[in-house]
Amino acid sequence: MRFVTYRTALTEPRLGLLHDGLVVDVEYFGAAIGQDLPSTMLDFIDLGPIAPRFLQEAVTNASTADFVGTSLPQANVALLAPIPRPRKNIFGIGLNYTEHVAESARSLDTSKDLPQQPVIFSKPPTAVAAWDDPIRHNGAVTQQLDWETELAVVIGRTARRVAEADALDHVFGYTVINDVSARDCRRAGQWIVSKGQDSFAPMGPCIVTSDEIGDPQDLSLKTRINGVEKQNGNTRFMLFNVAQLVADISSVMTLEPGDIIATGTPAGVGAGRDPQEFLWPGDVVECEIEKIGMLRNPVVAV
Amino acid sequence: MRFVTYRTALTEPRLGLLHDGLVVDVEYFGAAIGQDLPSTMLDFIDLGPIAPRFLQEAVTNASTADFVGTSLPQANVALLAPIPRPRKNIFGIGLNYTEHVAESARSLDTSKDLPQQPVIFSKPPTAVAAWDDPIRHNGAVTQQLDWETELAVVIGRTARRVAEADALDHVFGYTVINDVSARDCRRAGQWIVSKGQDSFAPMGPCIVTSDEIGDPQDLSLKTRINGVEKQNGNTRFMLFNVAQLVADISSVMTLEPGDIIATGTPAGVGAGRDPQEFLWPGDVVECEIEKIGMLRNPVVAV
Repeated sequence: MRFVTYRTALTEPRLGLLHDGLVVDVEYFGAAIGQDLPSTMLDFIDLGPIAPRFLQEAVTNASTADFVGTSLPQANVALLAPIPRPRKNIFGIGLNYTEHVAESARSLDTSKDLPQQPVIFSKPPTAVAAWDDPIRHNGAVTQQLDWETELAVVIGRTARRVAEADALDHVFGYTVINDVSARDCRRAGQWIVSKGQDSFAPMGPCIVTSDEIGDPQDLSLKTRINGVEKQNGNTRFMLFNVAQLVADISSVMTLEPGDIIATGTPAGVGAGRDPQEFLWPGDVVECEIEKIGMLRNPVVAV
Repeated sequence: MRFVTYRTALTEPRLGLLHDGLVVDVEYFGAAIGQDLPSTMLDFIDLGPIAPRFLQEAVTNASTADFVGTSLPQANVALLAPIPRPRKNIFGIGLNYTEHVAESARSLDTSKDLPQQPVIFSKPPTAVAAWDDPIRHNGAVTQQLDWETELAVVIGRTARRVAEADALDHVFGYTVINDVSARDCRRAGQWIVSKGQDSFAPMGPCIVTSDEIGDPQDLSLKTRINGVEKQNGNTRFMLFNVAQLVADISSVMTLEPGDIIATGTPAGVGAGRDPQEFLWPGDVVECEIEKIGMLRNPVVAV
């Protein structure tokens, strides 16, 4: 299933399910079939694995009448980030693709050795941006704004010291994140200013549930800047795969429903190119991941 | 004013005001004087500067009867962290006292040069612990658990690109935080695993409002381990003072009501001592800051 957070001119952000070109409002659809269902993505995730299974059944068995007054054509709504306001900082993973470790060592101050454990940082909830929201280029603080297309994992069930073999059971689904990074804003090796500025976490367009993704380690990732391809990788080349990342983080920090893990970017970022390329106001960034979709954001001066 | 989040055996965490040895329940006191007031710290902070000013007036003018049924002796309640569940990761500042920069350069992998800008990292909400909660020593991941007593700033009003001269107007108050750090859990220079593990952010015992603190750059900080003094510093020796930190963070990331900034620790951490000393199960850590109070936590094996 493909879930979105959507809004019309008259509504607050609400949880929707993409179905046959429609956005089905989950709460209203529930009311039509006599089942209380929540109106936000986080409340839905909080219900645990039973909720998407129930909804899948219900939508499959629904009559046309059940969608009347409970759904809108996708073209008539605005999409927000699937989780517009995470309950804590997004976990980010650095240096998680071999070629990106190499390009980073050439162009930035990171080691050329492959990390022995996942390299974890964070991006605050204020960094989240929606489809088509501007990526804010603040010329007063950066001249090296860069892109990073990444598979984002959305946690579905609390994970505390889970084994790698059980880790994927704790995943609700996946979305696309652009781990926007101002390369010249790192401070004494810490990345949060580089990666945590307002608008530096565009996410979307939807969350695709785990069952529909299948193997998360077989998804192509692409980035286009102004229509020109810059990154073209595949999640099979992650150094630490999704199960390992979930198990590893959960060994030291409890993962909670709705938590987001940005799993790192393949080669082809701007800083790693020769000559280096960075984002400037007027540029358009497209981040695309197989089976999930494409996330597009313009770069705007602020 | 001194605010706490408290609980009795029968209640959820609730907002209280310390007054004459009593914990005055803010919501119930409001009801007694005919004013709707919130039951949690974050909801109270969200009301803005008018709320503490109103409450101060109301408590000053209250009759004894107004406290009957609205307050409890402090000894009869349990204190939680003043903000038990922050809405995003706590901002931490590294290397913000000269002597600590020097001891870190000697014993860890940090530079001996003073940072030119605040060094920012984060600790997730799952790290928060209350007065007397165990600091969890996980022997499987660390043999170098360390203490860091720090002044924590609680933001009261949204701060976006605020000037240093205006920055303190955005502060609600101050509390004590222990920036517990597993020195051997740093990863490729990133500190979140070292500083973000469950229970690594004990906070409390209370939030003291800005007006009662006066100058935040004139407060002594002390740490005692099993009763023996290990840190004895003063906030006047911060490299970047509170106003500078708020202005700096707000220049790149929007600060929101309820956000917490741990402002760095003075010299005297375990890693910086000769020989090095670390925390072990059975130890008791006391972190004390002038005008705020003392925060005590035992170290427990998990």
